[in-house]
Amino acid sequence: MTEDRSFDMPLEEAMRTQRSIRRLRADPVDHDLLLHCVELALKAPTGSNSQGWEFVLVEDRTSVGAIGRLNGFAWRLYGPVGRRQYRRNEQMQRILAAVQHQADNYDDIPALVVPCVRVPFSIPFVIGPVLGASALYGSVYPSIQNFLLACRAAGLGACLTTLPLWNVRRVRKILGLPRGLLPVAVIPVGWPEGRYGPTTRRPVKEVVHLDRFGNRPFL
Amino acid sequence: MTEDRSFDMPLEEAMRTQRSIRRLRADPVDHDLLLHCVELALKAPTGSNSQGWEFVLVEDRTSVGAIGRLNGFAWRLYGPVGRRQYRRNEQMQRILAAVQHQADNYDDIPALVVPCVRVPFSIPFVIGPVLGASALYGSVYPSIQNFLLACRAAGLGACLTTLPLWNVRRVRKILGLPRGLLPVAVIPVGWPEGRYGPTTRRPVKEVVHLDRFGNRPFL
Repeated sequence: MTEDRSFDMPLEEAMRTQRSIRRLRADPVDHDLLLHCVELALKAPTGSNSQGWEFVLVEDRTSVGAIGRLNGFAWRLYGPVGRRQYRRNEQMQRILAAVQHQADNYDDIPALVVPCVRVPFSIPFVIGPVLGASALYGSVYPSIQNFLLACRAAGLGACLTTLPLWNVRRVRKILGLPRGLLPVAVIPVGWPEGRYGPTTRRPVKEVVHLDRFGNRPFL
Repeated sequence: MTEDRSFDMPLEEAMRTQRSIRRLRADPVDHDLLLHCVELALKAPTGSNSQGWEFVLVEDRTSVGAIGRLNGFAWRLYGPVGRRQYRRNEQMQRILAAVQHQADNYDDIPALVVPCVRVPFSIPFVIGPVLGASALYGSVYPSIQNFLLACRAAGLGACLTTLPLWNVRRVRKILGLPRGLLPVAVIPVGWPEGRYGPTTRRPVKEVVHLDRFGNRPFL
C-alpha cells in the first residue's frame, strides 16, 4: 500500500514509545496511511481464525460530533470522580487534563476509527461466560493494539477510548451497524500536537508470579 | 534485561509473520527472555492507566497438567464441531490438527503464561455493560498482543488460547488467584517446532467502511 518505511521502526522501540496521544491537529489523515495501519491490524490473531472484524473510519463531521457528544456526556460524569480520586497523582492529573482537552475539541478530530466484532453464536459462549467474553474481545483487541502500534510507527497520534460506548445503541445507529456487530472501541486518530515518548509502568518483576499468585522469585 | 537484539525486528515484519505456533519443543525457556517479553507487554495501554494486570508463569508440571486437562475437556466438545464445520476448508483443517497436537502434548509444554486482570468496581461498569466489558478486556488484551509480538521477535512459539477458561473457578484454584483477579487467557510458550511465516487475512479494503457500515469506497 503506502511505501512509507516508518513501519520498519524496531518492534521494541515502537512498544517502548507508544503512548496515548490526545492532542491532535485538525489536518486530515491520508487514507492510504490509515488503510496500511488497518492492514497491519488484521495480522493479529482471532479466536478460531474467525476474523469477524470490521473497521469503520468516521470522518463525517456530523457523526464525529454525535460520537463526541456521547463521549462528553460520560466524561462529565466520570471526569470529576477521576480528578478527585487522583488529586494527589500528578501524572494522572496530566492525563485527565489531556482527556478534558480531547472532550473539549472532539469536533476537530480528523478521524475516528471504530473497530467492531461480529458476536458469534458458538460453543465457547455456551460452555462459559468468561470464556465467551474473553474469546470475543480477544478476537479484536489484539488487532486494535497492532493498529495503535502501527499509528505510533507512522507518527500518527492515536488513543484507545471506550467512553462513547456507554450508549451502544446510539453508536450503532450513527454508524449504521447491523445487529450482531459490536463496536468495541473508538480511536481518535490524527497528526499529533504532542510527542510520543517513554511511559511509566509497574516493574515487570512485581507483575510476574511463578506457578502460584504471590510467588515472585524475580523480585 | 536480556541484551538480545532480536526485539529490534522491524514492526511490520513482526506483525506480518506473527502466527500461532502450537507445536513446541519441551526444552525450558530462559526466564530473562520471558521477563523481557512481559516487560514489553506492560508497555501497552490500560483503561484509566489502571495497570491492573498480573502475569502468572506456570512451569510446575502438576499445574500445567491440570490446565491441560481443562483444555482437553473443552477440546473434546469443541473439536468435533469444528472439524465438521470446516470439513471443506483445508487451512482450518491444518489449524485444527495443530490444536489437536497441542491438546495431545499439553504435558510437554515448557511454560504457560496466564495474563490476569483485576476487575475494578468503577463507573464504566455502572453506566454500561458493553463499555464495562470492553474497558476491562481492553485493559489486558493489548498487553497480550505485545507479548505475542515480542515472542515472535524472539523466535519463541506462542499461541493465544482461552479454552481452559471454561472453568474459571478451577483455573483460579490451580494458580491460587485471589478473588477479583480474572484470568483472561492461557498462552503456551516454548521453542517452536514449526516456523513463523505469513498469514492469510480478509483484504483490508473489504474490512474498512467509511462513515457508515456498508460504504466501502476503497474496494
